[in-house]
Amino acid sequence: MPAHESITRRHRLDRVLQPFRRRRGLIVAPNLPSADRDRIAKEVEQLLAQPETTAQRVAAARLVAAYRGLDADGHGHFLDLLASRFGTDPAAIDRAAASLQRASTPTARARAERDLRQAVVPRYAALLHVITGLADGVGFLVDLRADVLARAHDDATLGSLEDELTGHLATLFDVGLLDLRQITWDSPASVLDRLMETEAVHEIHGWEDLRHRLAGDQRCYGFFHPALPNEPIVFVEVALTHGLADNLPHLLEREDAVDDADTAIFYSITSAQPGLAGVHLGNELIKQVVDELRRTDDDLKHFATLSPLPGYRSWLRSEVKANALLSTELEAFGPELDAIVDGDDSWVLDPALAERLRPGVLSTAARYLMTTRDGRARDSVANFHLSNGASLERLNWLANPAHYGIEQSLGVMVNYLYDRSKIAANAGSYLTEGSIKTSNHVKNLVKTPKR
Amino acid sequence: MPAHESITRRHRLDRVLQPFRRRRGLIVAPNLPSADRDRIAKEVEQLLAQPETTAQRVAAARLVAAYRGLDADGHGHFLDLLASRFGTDPAAIDRAAASLQRASTPTARARAERDLRQAVVPRYAALLHVITGLADGVGFLVDLRADVLARAHDDATLGSLEDELTGHLATLFDVGLLDLRQITWDSPASVLDRLMETEAVHEIHGWEDLRHRLAGDQRCYGFFHPALPNEPIVFVEVALTHGLADNLPHLLEREDAVDDADTAIFYSITSAQPGLAGVHLGNELIKQVVDELRRTDDDLKHFATLSPLPGYRSWLRSEVKANALLSTELEAFGPELDAIVDGDDSWVLDPALAERLRPGVLSTAARYLMTTRDGRARDSVANFHLSNGASLERLNWLANPAHYGIEQSLGVMVNYLYDRSKIAANAGSYLTEGSIKTSNHVKNLVKTPKR
Amino acid sequence: MPAHESITRRHRLDRVLQPFRRRRGLIVAPNLPSADRDRIAKEVEQLLAQPETTAQRVAAARLVAAYRGLDADGHGHFLDLLASRFGTDPAAIDRAAASLQRASTPTARARAERDLRQAVVPRYAALLHVITGLADGVGFLVDLRADVLARAHDDATLGSLEDELTGHLATLFDVGLLDLRQITWDSPASVLDRLMETEAVHEIHGWEDLRHRLAGDQRCYGFFHPALPNEPIVFVEVALTHGLADNLPHLLEREDAVDDADTAIFYSITSAQPGLAGVHLGNELIKQVVDELRRTDDDLKHFATLSPLPGYRSWLRSEVKANALLSTELEAFGPELDAIVDGDDSWVLDPALAERLRPGVLSTAARYLMTTRDGRARDSVANFHLSNGASLERLNWLANPAHYGIEQSLGVMVNYLYDRSKIAANAGSYLTEGSIKTSNHVKNLVKTPKR
Amino acid sequence: MPAHESITRRHRLDRVLQPFRRRRGLIVAPNLPSADRDRIAKEVEQLLAQPETTAQRVAAARLVAAYRGLDADGHGHFLDLLASRFGTDPAAIDRAAASLQRASTPTARARAERDLRQAVVPRYAALLHVITGLADGVGFLVDLRADVLARAHDDATLGSLEDELTGHLATLFDVGLLDLRQITWDSPASVLDRLMETEAVHEIHGWEDLRHRLAGDQRCYGFFHPALPNEPIVFVEVALTHGLADNLPHLLEREDAVDDADTAIFYSITSAQPGLAGVHLGNELIKQVVDELRRTDDDLKHFATLSPLPGYRSWLRSEVKANALLSTELEAFGPELDAIVDGDDSWVLDPALAERLRPGVLSTAARYLMTTRDGRARDSVANFHLSNGASLERLNWLANPAHYGIEQSLGVMVNYLYDRSKIAANAGSYLTEGSIKTSNHVKNLVKTPKR
Repeated sequence: MPAHESITRRHRLDRVLQPFRRRRGLIVAPNLPSADRDRIAKEVEQLLAQPETTAQRVAAARLVAAYRGLDADGHGHFLDLLASRFGTDPAAIDRAAASLQRASTPTARARAERDLRQAVVPRYAALLHVITGLADGVGFLVDLRADVLARAHDDATLGSLEDELTGHLATLFDVGLLDLRQITWDSPASVLDRLMETEAVHEIHGWEDLRHRLAGDQRCYGFFHPALPNEPIVFVEVALTHGLADNLPHLLEREDAVDDADTAIFYSITSAQPGLAGVHLGNELIKQVVDELRRTDDDLKHFATLSPLPGYRSWLRSEVKANALLSTELEAFGPELDAIVDGDDSWVLDPALAERLRPGVLSTAARYLMTTRDGRARDSVANFHLSNGASLERLNWLANPAHYGIEQSLGVMVNYLYDRSKIAANAGSYLTEGSIKTSNHVKNLVKTPKR
Repeated sequence: MPAHESITRRHRLDRVLQPFRRRRGLIVAPNLPSADRDRIAKEVEQLLAQPETTAQRVAAARLVAAYRGLDADGHGHFLDLLASRFGTDPAAIDRAAASLQRASTPTARARAERDLRQAVVPRYAALLHVITGLADGVGFLVDLRADVLARAHDDATLGSLEDELTGHLATLFDVGLLDLRQITWDSPASVLDRLMETEAVHEIHGWEDLRHRLAGDQRCYGFFHPALPNEPIVFVEVALTHGLADNLPHLLEREDAVDDADTAIFYSITSAQPGLAGVHLGNELIKQVVDELRRTDDDLKHFATLSPLPGYRSWLRSEVKANALLSTELEAFGPELDAIVDGDDSWVLDPALAERLRPGVLSTAARYLMTTRDGRARDSVANFHLSNGASLERLNWLANPAHYGIEQSLGVMVNYLYDRSKIAANAGSYLTEGSIKTSNHVKNLVKTPKR
Repeated sequence: MPAHESITRRHRLDRVLQPFRRRRGLIVAPNLPSADRDRIAKEVEQLLAQPETTAQRVAAARLVAAYRGLDADGHGHFLDLLASRFGTDPAAIDRAAASLQRASTPTARARAERDLRQAVVPRYAALLHVITGLADGVGFLVDLRADVLARAHDDATLGSLEDELTGHLATLFDVGLLDLRQITWDSPASVLDRLMETEAVHEIHGWEDLRHRLAGDQRCYGFFHPALPNEPIVFVEVALTHGLADNLPHLLEREDAVDDADTAIFYSITSAQPGLAGVHLGNELIKQVVDELRRTDDDLKHFATLSPLPGYRSWLRSEVKANALLSTELEAFGPELDAIVDGDDSWVLDPALAERLRPGVLSTAARYLMTTRDGRARDSVANFHLSNGASLERLNWLANPAHYGIEQSLGVMVNYLYDRSKIAANAGSYLTEGSIKTSNHVKNLVKTPKR
Repeated sequence: MPAHESITRRHRLDRVLQPFRRRRGLIVAPNLPSADRDRIAKEVEQLLAQPETTAQRVAAARLVAAYRGLDADGHGHFLDLLASRFGTDPAAIDRAAASLQRASTPTARARAERDLRQAVVPRYAALLHVITGLADGVGFLVDLRADVLARAHDDATLGSLEDELTGHLATLFDVGLLDLRQITWDSPASVLDRLMETEAVHEIHGWEDLRHRLAGDQRCYGFFHPALPNEPIVFVEVALTHGLADNLPHLLEREDAVDDADTAIFYSITSAQPGLAGVHLGNELIKQVVDELRRTDDDLKHFATLSPLPGYRSWLRSEVKANALLSTELEAFGPELDAIVDGDDSWVLDPALAERLRPGVLSTAARYLMTTRDGRARDSVANFHLSNGASLERLNWLANPAHYGIEQSLGVMVNYLYDRSKIAANAGSYLTEGSIKTSNHVKNLVKTPKR
């Protein structure tokens, strides 16, 4: 209703449409020579000391623009600078820890803990809060975390910065602040553009292909955040079918709507923001989409996926190398096993050969999916859906004969089943005991040697 | 645009309109006897151990409903239970502090700091995160903080809970997530109802009075949060005038629009959520409203307030008791001073007497406003506007002759001036040096004894 | 979505919020003396001759403002002026009619008909089109039609103006351009204000009463038009109940939601725009609301009304005067009949007396409702619902004991039933044959003399 | 605001997203054999006799679906059927005309005119009203009018149907019901798709080209109608420049925003709905966009076009053939004239030759633009802008060297100037006297023979 519309959004929009014609401020050489590091350090220092919020924000905007102008090396130097010069004060922490140890009454202990908690907050936390209030500040923090994640494994000193950003963004991107929206051909072109750019599972080949993905009995839903109005955070693609889908190309290429759809197949789920990796939203998205589909389409009875097994082939190769295949599996493969191990994929074009490979592939794939390590399924996609409370329902032979489908999964795809009444129990037993709920169909595929 | 609307909001709305017909779950006696405390503790324990998010959320919703059903004593017991049984693990903190002291390399130190930081996070933090994701969870956390604030000064053990809620809500209510909206007669009735209920400065007497407050050359703006769609967080009332306003009743009762308005008078600013006390949004609201008014009305040149001096009269009384009035001030008052000190306000009805009081009142009020303690103005309203970068522009005699205006401020009101080009400098010198930018008009009111 | 919002609506809003500070233009004495009539005639003449649309619109806005400034007499003079000086050109019509009669070929006939059709369009039609394009033009035309309707029965020359406005507004307010919206406590205050002002059936006593009408298991829906964003065109109030409601005060005063609602009772339907009288939208509103309720609440199985019999009492009085009551009806009434005929309503307060009146009232009310004149039910409310395809389901004794309920309907109220599967058939047989679908319950109330 | 959102739009959207899975009803052979014609005639007959609106609408929806399933011949037969069997009743018209001639009193005359006006309304008018209320009825009527327009010049009997549709759609698409919206990369993809498909002046080559057209200092605005939410009715493309633009490729290919833009150049205006041809909305769109740009960008001082001369080259050819060029023009051309007359456009690639052509082209183009016929500029684009009140400001040599620019306009483009203070006067003198406001620059280009 325009009668009670958001002025903030209107101006956010105006700003997007009419970007500043001139941008001045801090000009930084892309590789950030040391003189500039000192200058940036001084800028950050002044910003943190600035008592007036508007002035502080102007300084923060300058800093953000400076960072945007840097190359990858410059980003690294900037992050190091933040982590090393604007972290915690070791002396203050030591003092607080000492006080804590001396505290003799509950009240003194409580006070000492509060002080200690203050002391372990790095100084750059205040900078992150100022940036959050900038017009495009939330988006910047998401990108900043992506940069930190790309470096953190090499650099222990970035760990605290990563923790700080993770905690801050986990709160900002709490599911209570996210909007579920259906994405259709009537969605903003900028949203669709971003969707094409980021779709990670099954590439979209241009606008016509995208239109087809959104038409007929296809659905797409995404989570959006108020501070990033036209960028999906995570999105899922769904096809309505009659019965469980067993073939991806058939799903993607079908022309007509289905008369008797009773099943929603989730065939692609994409986190569109690398900077939010590990902020688990996919789980919640699937649940909300199941609820929404149930509400809007009374005929839908089953909710399942058509998923790849991204780690299967490399696991198979290592099993072969380690002579770890079961005798029954070797038997099932027969001489065709070599073709797979060698990386020769021409069998895909030879139906007879492909048919001969089938028993070996399906039996090892089934065993692979049911294998856990440290209480988690080895396969990352399996782990995701099992954690959500889905069960392992069916394997489908040659369900994705595309290059990328063969390369990772030897063309096999899995249906994970989301049965609402069993989700909590499935997730519970998987997450606490590593127990994987599996259909008889999949269990029977495993060629356990008879005794 | 319906073409890309929020499904989340639609269902949030549906829920509001069609509340659950039946509510079951935890039923708690209002005063929470100990058996129930144990049961609640057990519920919280299970919730924190529950691995599946939907089940966890259902449990959290039950807990929220239970809390809503308690009386004030029950709330206190619940908060104590949280703070005492679900806080930090002292042993873990001690271990982390000891590790830190032993750390001999930078990397070990960095790791130990991260561990310590984990250890000082109380267990109830996880509960607050789960509640945030509930449909009305953010509103609940705001109310919960109000309950904590009402108790915290008596109860040191609630300090950490207050810190945790403050930090969490300060992030959730970051200005980057707030919407500025104009509030008009076309706003939702629920918004207007809330506005009438919470207006703290100049009470609104029913719907017709409210309609008058929003009509003609009056404006009202508020900040809204995506998780509380129809509750203003903080709002400000503005009157467009020609020149600085010097009389509140004239402002509120005028019938017609002003032909030559050049000034926006901010005459009331209200924080509508007690649970967000201290999350400073009023400052930001004034700045954004100044920008919006500048954009939409080219003729506006001046931005100022018409504000009370809430602490003036009690300060005056204590000055009199302490014999601390200056001789020149005593002289200015003459014998009428007694009338004020005695608390007899009948002088308001006696124009001649009121006129005789004027010099004494204005001179002491001017000195009062310019007095600082610990680098801050004694008057809370003065401190608010001076911190924002406003300056002390003018005192107005008998500007608010209503009972509450006489009781606190002897009828005086102040104009604080927001001059955009000077805001940063004013705020800086006030906040760092306690220096108050004052007009000659106000300076000249102070009756400094001549030497 | 702000990303694709309507600029038009934003400015329409801005205009509402910030009305022009000064209005100049044509100043007309309220009673429109003849000098002014000439001036207005000249203005209209110039407007119709003006080739440039913006200039034309400015002139039309001046005319609208002038009309708004007139009193009722002035309005009458203005309407006469339009109808008499800016109607059709009789000579042109006569020429076209003559051509038509001379036309000897189909093509000539077709051309002559087109010419005739042009000739019968009055000149003021062009003025109405210009006004439609003004910012508040559509609202003005609605008000103008109300003024014409109030005069047309006295004034044959206004008939063509009425036809023109009716045709124009029937197209502008086609159901294809209307928005169905639920009206709740979150609707704009201006909408709710209008609702209170116009509710025609059961008066709303202030904002608290209104809030109660919209809360719990009450619903309200209205049609809105894009050119009148915050004015309901027609609205309906609905209560969800278990079974058919038989008592209005119980319905309006109940406090709690109903656990097992299976029925939606339409208890009030109001046309909020007198200028749209006869543009039949109530019928369509009921049908769309039935569909919406069915969609949003699976448990609702029955859709019915609780309606007054506005013409019943005066019909009864005339039947008595004409000695037209059946002997069985007289018998049913007994001596109490006089109380009713005399207009003494004290029986309402005497339960025993009321109970004795019951058989006579219900039997005559049932016969009254089933009586047709020229193929239509005598009772206007009955005619409305029967035309929509509802059936006559049940009479309820003392269902509305309020003053206005006794005065018109002797407290009786009717349930008309909307059974979706029978609507088309019911409406068809009623509208074509005057046949009223009636339940056995109602049929049995009629005291047909036995032979 | 979801709190007061349109249910109608939500369901309109749902319908778009989830089209009926099954469609049954009237199946018509594409070429509409006579048996079907009788059946359709019978359907229309029943529809017009059906008293119940929902049943009527269902029948109308079936008819619309049937029409959509027909090929072009079938459409023709359907239109003929409507026009011939469901037009007016000649006998009734004759009777009404006769009554009119007999009417001897003003009242009788008034009544007879009203009757005549009823009689000249064809029966299919009622069908058009029913269709308007269908979910996609307005769009259908627009398409239907396009079909009628494509046939009407050959078929006199369709003239009345054209009149009826024109009058009906002119009311429905009154500017008072249209929404002005900016079209950006954040607009619905369906809107942008339609824009690419219909852009009539300067073709858009795919999505990347479109994105470029909407970026930086480019703007696009369109009118939208509530019943066709994602279809622009008419749209205009604007480039912000410093000074008048003189070259189209430069305008379309520039990469950067302009620092000192003071001029808005309207370089393309497209009616996106053939069925609304002649419902003049482009004029109004330009005026509203000028207002909006003025509001949002204070620096813009000038509003002009960069327009083709679509009729220039063919006019020049006919002037040459008729030996009507002035001697001074022949002189200006010199021997190069032949190149143009022959249709050999290779001169575009030969800068020296092009330069020699310049004087002849510009002088004849200037004279061509200033030439009127029946009080209107010969050039259709000139007539459009001059009718709107623009003036003829400047000719630009080789401003559009693209094939289509050479073919029609010999590469010349015109700047028409919209000077707000002169628009009403310019339009007035042009439309009433055929007088074209022309700059001295253009006047001086004309090579009037000296005497």
